[in-house]
Amino acid sequence: MNVRPPLGLKSPLRIPHKLLMGPGPSNSSPRILNALSQPILGHMHSELFDIMDEIKKGIQYVFQTNNQLTLAISASGHAGMEAVLCNLLEPHDVVLILINGIWGERAANLAERYGAIVRKLVKTALGSNFSIIEIENAVKIHQPKLLFVVQGESSTGIYQPIIGIGEITRRYNCLLVVDTVASLGAVPFLMDKWKVDAAYSGSQKIIGAPPGLAPISFNERALKTIANRKTPIPVYFWDITLLGQQWNCFERSAPRLYHHTTSATLLYGLREGLAVIADEGLEQVIKRHQHCAAQLYEGIEALGMQLYVDEEHKRLPSVTTIKVPDGVDWRKVTEYAMKRYKLEISGGLGPTAGKVFRVGIMGYNATQENIVFVLDVLKEALKHSVTSSKL
Amino acid sequence: MNVRPPLGLKSPLRIPHKLLMGPGPSNSSPRILNALSQPILGHMHSELFDIMDEIKKGIQYVFQTNNQLTLAISASGHAGMEAVLCNLLEPHDVVLILINGIWGERAANLAERYGAIVRKLVKTALGSNFSIIEIENAVKIHQPKLLFVVQGESSTGIYQPIIGIGEITRRYNCLLVVDTVASLGAVPFLMDKWKVDAAYSGSQKIIGAPPGLAPISFNERALKTIANRKTPIPVYFWDITLLGQQWNCFERSAPRLYHHTTSATLLYGLREGLAVIADEGLEQVIKRHQHCAAQLYEGIEALGMQLYVDEEHKRLPSVTTIKVPDGVDWRKVTEYAMKRYKLEISGGLGPTAGKVFRVGIMGYNATQENIVFVLDVLKEALKHSVTSSKL
Repeated sequence: MNVRPPLGLKSPLRIPHKLLMGPGPSNSSPRILNALSQPILGHMHSELFDIMDEIKKGIQYVFQTNNQLTLAISASGHAGMEAVLCNLLEPHDVVLILINGIWGERAANLAERYGAIVRKLVKTALGSNFSIIEIENAVKIHQPKLLFVVQGESSTGIYQPIIGIGEITRRYNCLLVVDTVASLGAVPFLMDKWKVDAAYSGSQKIIGAPPGLAPISFNERALKTIANRKTPIPVYFWDITLLGQQWNCFERSAPRLYHHTTSATLLYGLREGLAVIADEGLEQVIKRHQHCAAQLYEGIEALGMQLYVDEEHKRLPSVTTIKVPDGVDWRKVTEYAMKRYKLEISGGLGPTAGKVFRVGIMGYNATQENIVFVLDVLKEALKHSVTSSKL
Repeated sequence: MNVRPPLGLKSPLRIPHKLLMGPGPSNSSPRILNALSQPILGHMHSELFDIMDEIKKGIQYVFQTNNQLTLAISASGHAGMEAVLCNLLEPHDVVLILINGIWGERAANLAERYGAIVRKLVKTALGSNFSIIEIENAVKIHQPKLLFVVQGESSTGIYQPIIGIGEITRRYNCLLVVDTVASLGAVPFLMDKWKVDAAYSGSQKIIGAPPGLAPISFNERALKTIANRKTPIPVYFWDITLLGQQWNCFERSAPRLYHHTTSATLLYGLREGLAVIADEGLEQVIKRHQHCAAQLYEGIEALGMQLYVDEEHKRLPSVTTIKVPDGVDWRKVTEYAMKRYKLEISGGLGPTAGKVFRVGIMGYNATQENIVFVLDVLKEALKHSVTSSKL
């Protein structure tokens, strides 16, 4: 054999402890980390099916839905976006995408790959969200088969209310898809009440499990669309009609299908993440995130810094965007926090790159103590990162 | 909120310890399980990039390749199959698939979804593999763009030698893709020497990490095919041109692309799985699996049972298929082993369903003691599972 074993693998694995106050992943709690080291179970073992059933019910709870077709896809939150579009869109379908940050743009990219005709409603005034009237006008003009909305734009820190949109999409015979990756658990998401037809999230944000699973749910209306497809679902791995059989979502008496090898480890983590939310109660979890966010807003203003999203009701509590002050090198600030305190504060992404800091308040990390720590470090880091005399 | 927290999540997580001697996943060693409970790192943290670099080199080692475009996809082994076909095939391309079990059939299903024209070379005499002459004739007739071969068919326990096929595919201007999910580490796989253009595997078999990652590698020839595509790569999540940027496979100086949120937890596990193989040495790992397999063959024959694959050189050491004796209810046998001893022995899959037992010999579980245990339990379980007086 010509290729020798690499030297790097001889060295022991050393993982530093960090406090992850960026837009995700967040830190998993000791309870969740402990679950990850439990022995592996086979993907067709009854004990793992029981855990999958508990996860399904836990996702129904956090999504506030009774949809039977509710499960976790074995890939990152991004896969939720891809799976929803892949199952619901066919070539030449018109899809309308609300864009106020990078994730709407990404959805447009994905939808185009599946051959859909993409129409965009773009928020040019960054730092704001869409009104119901703007949305209704766009749906009326474009008559899309599917409307795609991001509830929490982690790149800009914008919160997009969903209430009222479902009534519009029903009126225009359109499907409503909502991305809740960065928002779920920090703001209410009432999937059934708000008439959302398909939604997905990520395991690694407020749920606090490791990345690698994407909670997802489809209602009967979405299922009917899939049943009426003229072309096959193009990707086997995202095929929700098969995944639904593996997760026992259709007929209780039907045998479980072996679609792919699920990751017992990740399922343990997600199960525990959802259990922690069920224990605390979803309302309380949301309140805790909102209180921490309010505390952060106050502290940021006390430091003389400005929030990127002006109006408080348009801010996503789980990801706060803060303007980089004039004369400050943002990279120095985040590097200082990481090097000196092993604290992650992020820079911007996509349209906000170089313009903002992003502070995540998610799950286990959403505590008053952590907010105080972030503010103290930020204050100190800013002093070390002035590039001119303006500050 | 109308949907109440589910009762099941109130109960503590309890995972039974089992010995997984089926076709995978296998048990992760304590070293690997311990790595899984390490704190989460962000997907753009330098420490995680270092681990990804080590994984890349570890995969190059187990694949015996110097391919720069070598990485792990963030989804199950199945995703490796999907990713290879998605990147290399375009609509109306002809693909030739060698089928001697369920995985070839699955590849055909996937290729059809991507719009390829599928030609199949089927082994009707189950329990055998393809000769070089059969393969060359089929390539000559069908003139495919891509030839798909499974090195180790876990459904039938058949080993397909790869040596010599690469010379044929080069002669006919065809790409050679090899599935090594169930075989890698139990038999040699010399990717570069054998002129394999793309290959993939799973993390949860001989590598002994949890499921959820798929090692994958493309050579320059495969890359050229991708560069010359007339249509875009249809699936963002499998897009190897973007994944390669995230894994720093192209230009050393280029910044890492944020393609998706990788799972730190799973990367720790895979890193440790590859480190364990590097420590023991790949040749020794392969020998250990082959010794255990020989021990199992002998024991099975001593029990008066028959192996499904007649000729020893056609048997996959990591998955042994054993004929269910007349008068024995196979399900009772596997249930007895699981209930009484928490030992997983599997039934057949696809073409072998109901006909065989499948015993996996993989990674941490590949020890002489475990083989003795399997044989002892099998002997006892058979006695309890006779349905007629024939045995």
